[in-house]
Amino acid sequence: MTSYYRTVLLLIAVFCVWSSVVEGKVQVTAIPYSHGEVLLEGVLAWDDAIEGKRPGILVVHEWWGLDDYERTRAEQLAALGYVALAVDMYGKGKVTAHAGEAKQWMQQTTANVEMWQARALAGLQLLQADPKVDSARMAAIGYCFGGATVMQMVYGGAPVKGIVSFHGSLPLPPSSLTIKNSAKILIAHGEADPFLTQDHITQFTMALDGAGLDWHMVIYGGAQHSFTNPSADQYGIKGIRYQKQADRRSWAHMKLFFEEIFQ
Amino acid sequence: MTSYYRTVLLLIAVFCVWSSVVEGKVQVTAIPYSHGEVLLEGVLAWDDAIEGKRPGILVVHEWWGLDDYERTRAEQLAALGYVALAVDMYGKGKVTAHAGEAKQWMQQTTANVEMWQARALAGLQLLQADPKVDSARMAAIGYCFGGATVMQMVYGGAPVKGIVSFHGSLPLPPSSLTIKNSAKILIAHGEADPFLTQDHITQFTMALDGAGLDWHMVIYGGAQHSFTNPSADQYGIKGIRYQKQADRRSWAHMKLFFEEIFQ
Repeated sequence: MTSYYRTVLLLIAVFCVWSSVVEGKVQVTAIPYSHGEVLLEGVLAWDDAIEGKRPGILVVHEWWGLDDYERTRAEQLAALGYVALAVDMYGKGKVTAHAGEAKQWMQQTTANVEMWQARALAGLQLLQADPKVDSARMAAIGYCFGGATVMQMVYGGAPVKGIVSFHGSLPLPPSSLTIKNSAKILIAHGEADPFLTQDHITQFTMALDGAGLDWHMVIYGGAQHSFTNPSADQYGIKGIRYQKQADRRSWAHMKLFFEEIFQ
Repeated sequence: MTSYYRTVLLLIAVFCVWSSVVEGKVQVTAIPYSHGEVLLEGVLAWDDAIEGKRPGILVVHEWWGLDDYERTRAEQLAALGYVALAVDMYGKGKVTAHAGEAKQWMQQTTANVEMWQARALAGLQLLQADPKVDSARMAAIGYCFGGATVMQMVYGGAPVKGIVSFHGSLPLPPSSLTIKNSAKILIAHGEADPFLTQDHITQFTMALDGAGLDWHMVIYGGAQHSFTNPSADQYGIKGIRYQKQADRRSWAHMKLFFEEIFQ
């Protein structure tokens, strides 16, 4: 090895140590917990350079299960100053890249709406109990199946200031129930999402009005389903595509929404 | 008068002088100009504490004509650091509170689309020529009829980085024409605006897609037509109402959009 290469390697090593000191404030750890008899494992992220309690954000995964995508989102939220928990809705290690398996697990979870809401609430309560979290200032965001889940949290009365649904399936609220929740709702929706009809969206927004819920919806031109997930294209499913601009804009809209609900 | 009241009055006077010094940097002046044979008068607003060139924002009025509402918006934009021109689309002094008259003036302006686009462009060029304005960094916002006008500016190829339509009527682009404009489009729309059908909105967004335009739309739950105008209710027209929350949110969305297009 020449001294030139040795110098380069040394510089790289110095850079790695430096960047872990300067930017490595975000801590990430797995948190085992359970709901009923199901063993779950979430991922908690926070910035340990911040002192004192701060708002807690629950991150609910796509139908694939809790994978690197939600871990990254939790880290990004931690970098913004929040404590984030990427929650597990299926069970420890239940992650797949096969649509058939994902659909099966999702349907097992959503078949019983009360159980679905309760499992999300278990994650929220775990996050609320964290000593770094201001338990009165909570929010939840979710992607795809997770977007539907955070809507269910609103319907079920979960104690959140607000929720953000990213390319969620926008489930209707139960018509027989009065919703007791002042949580604000932000819907981030791709115009070209083939899994939702305009009729369904209209039914959904009218139902939110009927329930007296505070909502606004951003529609991103040309964006397809899963537009926020950089890995979306690799699943090879028609209508599921990443769109960088809609991803950036929707993240900025979420940040603005958090400023409003946590002010 | 007791010395107590004298002291209070003195304190109020001191506060007024202080606030005019601290916050009174925004300057406002009327600018006469013409388009063809029509004499117009716009209102220019800027912060004279700022040095150097900055982006210019055109503000296009509702169908009532250029009144205090648009003047206030121009001042607010100046306070944000922009140079703003509240443009006049009808003619000097043509302001009304009567819907019949407003409708007549609006229709006179919109009957000839080329003339409509050219009159808006005349305002934009006036603003571009201002020595405080960075003529390469322009945007336009418009309310109601003004929202339709800023869409026409995009269709007509006006040199803007972006436009924001607040409760605009969302005119369709001309189907026979290729649109040569990379302007980005933000649509702020009230869910309960009775003057637009969902069919029209769908036609509009599909036409934007067809024209290859970059757009996103925010729909504010429960907001009616003219939701940003605090004077909306005084016109006594069904479906026209101010909504404070949608007003605040749409202004914040506009600011975020400007950060994006002027970065």
